[in-house]
Amino acid sequence: MEYNGVTIDDEYAEAFPTWVSRIIITAVTEDWAYRAANEATGFATSAIGCPCEAGIEGFLSGDETPDGRPGVAILICAGKKKLKEQVVERLAECVLTAPTTAVFDGLPEAEERIAVKLHFFGDGYEYQKEVGGRKCWAIPIMNGEYVGEEDFGIVKGVAGGNFFVMGENQMAALMGAQAAVDAIAGVGGVITSFPGGIVGSGSKVGSKKYKFMPASTNEKYCPTLREKVEDTKVPEGVKAIYEIVIDGLDEDCVKEAMAEGVRAACMVPGVVFISAGNFGGNLGPFKFNLRDLF
Amino acid sequence: MEYNGVTIDDEYAEAFPTWVSRIIITAVTEDWAYRAANEATGFATSAIGCPCEAGIEGFLSGDETPDGRPGVAILICAGKKKLKEQVVERLAECVLTAPTTAVFDGLPEAEERIAVKLHFFGDGYEYQKEVGGRKCWAIPIMNGEYVGEEDFGIVKGVAGGNFFVMGENQMAALMGAQAAVDAIAGVGGVITSFPGGIVGSGSKVGSKKYKFMPASTNEKYCPTLREKVEDTKVPEGVKAIYEIVIDGLDEDCVKEAMAEGVRAACMVPGVVFISAGNFGGNLGPFKFNLRDLF
Amino acid sequence: MEYNGVTIDDEYAEAFPTWVSRIIITAVTEDWAYRAANEATGFATSAIGCPCEAGIEGFLSGDETPDGRPGVAILICAGKKKLKEQVVERLAECVLTAPTTAVFDGLPEAEERIAVKLHFFGDGYEYQKEVGGRKCWAIPIMNGEYVGEEDFGIVKGVAGGNFFVMGENQMAALMGAQAAVDAIAGVGGVITSFPGGIVGSGSKVGSKKYKFMPASTNEKYCPTLREKVEDTKVPEGVKAIYEIVIDGLDEDCVKEAMAEGVRAACMVPGVVFISAGNFGGNLGPFKFNLRDLF
Amino acid sequence: MEYNGVTIDDEYAEAFPTWVSRIIITAVTEDWAYRAANEATGFATSAIGCPCEAGIEGFLSGDETPDGRPGVAILICAGKKKLKEQVVERLAECVLTAPTTAVFDGLPEAEERIAVKLHFFGDGYEYQKEVGGRKCWAIPIMNGEYVGEEDFGIVKGVAGGNFFVMGENQMAALMGAQAAVDAIAGVGGVITSFPGGIVGSGSKVGSKKYKFMPASTNEKYCPTLREKVEDTKVPEGVKAIYEIVIDGLDEDCVKEAMAEGVRAACMVPGVVFISAGNFGGNLGPFKFNLRDLF
Repeated sequence: MEYNGVTIDDEYAEAFPTWVSRIIITAVTEDWAYRAANEATGFATSAIGCPCEAGIEGFLSGDETPDGRPGVAILICAGKKKLKEQVVERLAECVLTAPTTAVFDGLPEAEERIAVKLHFFGDGYEYQKEVGGRKCWAIPIMNGEYVGEEDFGIVKGVAGGNFFVMGENQMAALMGAQAAVDAIAGVGGVITSFPGGIVGSGSKVGSKKYKFMPASTNEKYCPTLREKVEDTKVPEGVKAIYEIVIDGLDEDCVKEAMAEGVRAACMVPGVVFISAGNFGGNLGPFKFNLRDLF
Repeated sequence: MEYNGVTIDDEYAEAFPTWVSRIIITAVTEDWAYRAANEATGFATSAIGCPCEAGIEGFLSGDETPDGRPGVAILICAGKKKLKEQVVERLAECVLTAPTTAVFDGLPEAEERIAVKLHFFGDGYEYQKEVGGRKCWAIPIMNGEYVGEEDFGIVKGVAGGNFFVMGENQMAALMGAQAAVDAIAGVGGVITSFPGGIVGSGSKVGSKKYKFMPASTNEKYCPTLREKVEDTKVPEGVKAIYEIVIDGLDEDCVKEAMAEGVRAACMVPGVVFISAGNFGGNLGPFKFNLRDLF
Repeated sequence: MEYNGVTIDDEYAEAFPTWVSRIIITAVTEDWAYRAANEATGFATSAIGCPCEAGIEGFLSGDETPDGRPGVAILICAGKKKLKEQVVERLAECVLTAPTTAVFDGLPEAEERIAVKLHFFGDGYEYQKEVGGRKCWAIPIMNGEYVGEEDFGIVKGVAGGNFFVMGENQMAALMGAQAAVDAIAGVGGVITSFPGGIVGSGSKVGSKKYKFMPASTNEKYCPTLREKVEDTKVPEGVKAIYEIVIDGLDEDCVKEAMAEGVRAACMVPGVVFISAGNFGGNLGPFKFNLRDLF
Repeated sequence: MEYNGVTIDDEYAEAFPTWVSRIIITAVTEDWAYRAANEATGFATSAIGCPCEAGIEGFLSGDETPDGRPGVAILICAGKKKLKEQVVERLAECVLTAPTTAVFDGLPEAEERIAVKLHFFGDGYEYQKEVGGRKCWAIPIMNGEYVGEEDFGIVKGVAGGNFFVMGENQMAALMGAQAAVDAIAGVGGVITSFPGGIVGSGSKVGSKKYKFMPASTNEKYCPTLREKVEDTKVPEGVKAIYEIVIDGLDEDCVKEAMAEGVRAACMVPGVVFISAGNFGGNLGPFKFNLRDLF
């Protein structure tokens, strides 16, 4: 199958369940909301070595936030226990500390809830306050008052939706991946947690040579090893591969993000092949076949 | 004492020793080096709740990097053992994974060294290679080859240099803090690790009411508590205070950063008072008196 | 009348007809479309001294553009004859020259049309080509091929919708204006053509002292002249005023932009008064009363 | 000759004299200085169709500006008469109108001077004021006071320094050009006036087919015409070419910018050939041979 002249492999992405929280950070301007969100979602590319996976889901206008100020929605993804710990730490250290911020639950209808009791920071000077119908705590701080909800919904979402952008050289593949990330940014409910949304060094589980490694380079997809590895999956003429990894609130939005991303990548000259990563289908309960995206 | 009509308090910042590594991240363009650096230095505002403190020190031209490509220098600060762990994790998850990156030691003359053995990711396909006179490992990855040094210098630096920007209202204080951060960005050897470089909720050690809290709001510096707290340190007419926290390679660069930052903040209309934070002088070995900056 | 504690003056904005073209610029990534759009809309703040008024209306996903690539929609506003000249020059010099761009008409249903014959640049090597159902010209250029439509709709729109954001000091007013611009960016069909969307030096028609000046400072709204000018319109306690000027495709979108912008500005601490600019109501056919926005 | 495996053509760039002014724009923060500078240097890619060529030369810290605030230096280039007109219009419409700006002469030692009398905007309320040893006018405006010098040095500089970045495909050439622009940004005294600093559609003087055209596509450098044009200059295997055009204060800085830019482009994978543009050497008095750059 081809799209805009690019071969779409007959492959599927294999993805996994994860717990997800969605947090709305507002601030005096969009830029200040973004800076807090950026700090709060850093060091969060992959659950293999980071304490969680996190990213910016999208921007919200004042009409869409409880306090009428511009906002940024972020997703934080991890196992249930780790998720609570990470939401607490990241809100406490990266958002409560940031200028002019407020924080609201982005999943008010979720049944599962976690408590994030930042109000202890107030040392007794804090008090309860309603903002936009939300029950919040106001904490006196040096720049005035921090206001935030402390009860956050979490849902069982999807981690590891993915596809591979393969190029006739490295820059074509990179710009294809960039175009994909641009397109995915417009899809609600998803994040691409890697740097700039793009993975340059996709991995396989474990290691053949170094048994202590939980993950190692995926040699079958390494263009420089194409002639050295028996069962290479690098198509002829491909010199670089980028992986786009997508986490999201549910299967539908991950699927939509994959569709938007693949189509966008295929518009970039020099992108020649699209595939996806899986582990044979026995590990993850979610499967997204590339050819079902069109 | 006044500078540009702004009162400079007779106070000093009290700062602490920390171990610091300086890492040079290069990439195909400055923007891609920045994105990796941004991810690698996220969730790293304060050692109180983050695993380390980290930030971007500055940008480097191709003339200044071992591989002749544009680069970004970052500082990572923590206790010695934690530092090694964090450098390993952040390089492995946020830089090795990022498109087109390479990594080099930014403190080649430091005597203390840490080993960051990313080459195990290569699963045996990796090999040694010299780049710009540096002994590196090349690891075949999906986008081509990752190249990096694995031996990094660390030095005993300074954490917690600081000053307070006080404004007649919140926006004046915020823009004063922003101008300070702009100015500090031009000083070598330092970072401002908080979101956008600015702290909106400076803390005191411990808590009077909640004994389990390692830190809590610094009520003496909370403008909304000015009439409620006996020994308030909020000057009359001050409605908001931002703290700029500076970590650096040595006392000299932290002092220079404080000087540049304070002077810049004083140029912003509505900034009325500059002070600094300390703990009585018994905790930290470094003292930076504000009036010595001029 | 008050909104969020901010006084809304009983005033109206007086606005004028203008011809408007809406042009869609696409490129390989959103960033490259933006850079071309940014260059094409520069030096275009005010028709008083610039050859036109122009700005970025919004970003478009690949689903919304004729060639399936990410895009930016810009508006260019001027008198009819000047508009054609400016569209030609700006597309020729700032978009055709930019990397990977294509150009499409953003008002395909408009009855009035202008021809923008860039294909002569092809020196005979150009040829016709259909893209997404649009009749285009493809021009061989150094980076490959430029593709663009040459027939653009224009409509009679509205120039000079406006409001004033008044603050208790300069930084409060500036951040209020910034929040307004953020909010207006989410409204379709409008631009704010001044630098960063904000005017720091609103003007009156003509000059009392220098007869050769077509416009001069609006002394009634100058805070530093509050005590020197008899009929000052600066409310007590106001130290700085910013004007947001809005051009748009029709009255509805200008009104919506004013409403979103005013509400957003009122959320910023230190913003104390909102007014609007007019010339007594005899010059412009469009009137937008501030109190009708709520 | 090769550099990093890239062929450096035995060609020279042919450049022309131009008058240049260098203007320092300061503002409350670097970002606000940038926004004014960005607006003031828009619609200014090429003197062929724009009223001038202009761009951002670099950023200045508060230590380097007359008023101690962060600044941006811009260059505006044109014939002498046009230059004065453009400096007047661009400062009046794009900088005086921008929030919190001030303007200073960036060539105080130049013998040739132009007068830019913005103070008439003050309608008699303006007054003279010294700032940082510079004789300025202060004009009461809505956001407070605008302050600026009115006497600007101009020098005879160099326009049209250039080189071509040729890639094995479009994305490689584009990223090579981007890396070049990144590198040139660090060189003082120069600008790259095209969108994002890069030209996608380099031109020849005049047109063979359309006599009314002052410039048209340079078919000898069009990759898609390689097989159709007799005397093509597109090397085998080249699929896209970008031109970097440099204007500067003197020959030395243009030469340095070319050197930095070429070396940076050669570090990008897929860049295969560097050349430069000239008109046979009879038109422009300045010649920069590529091989002299190394």
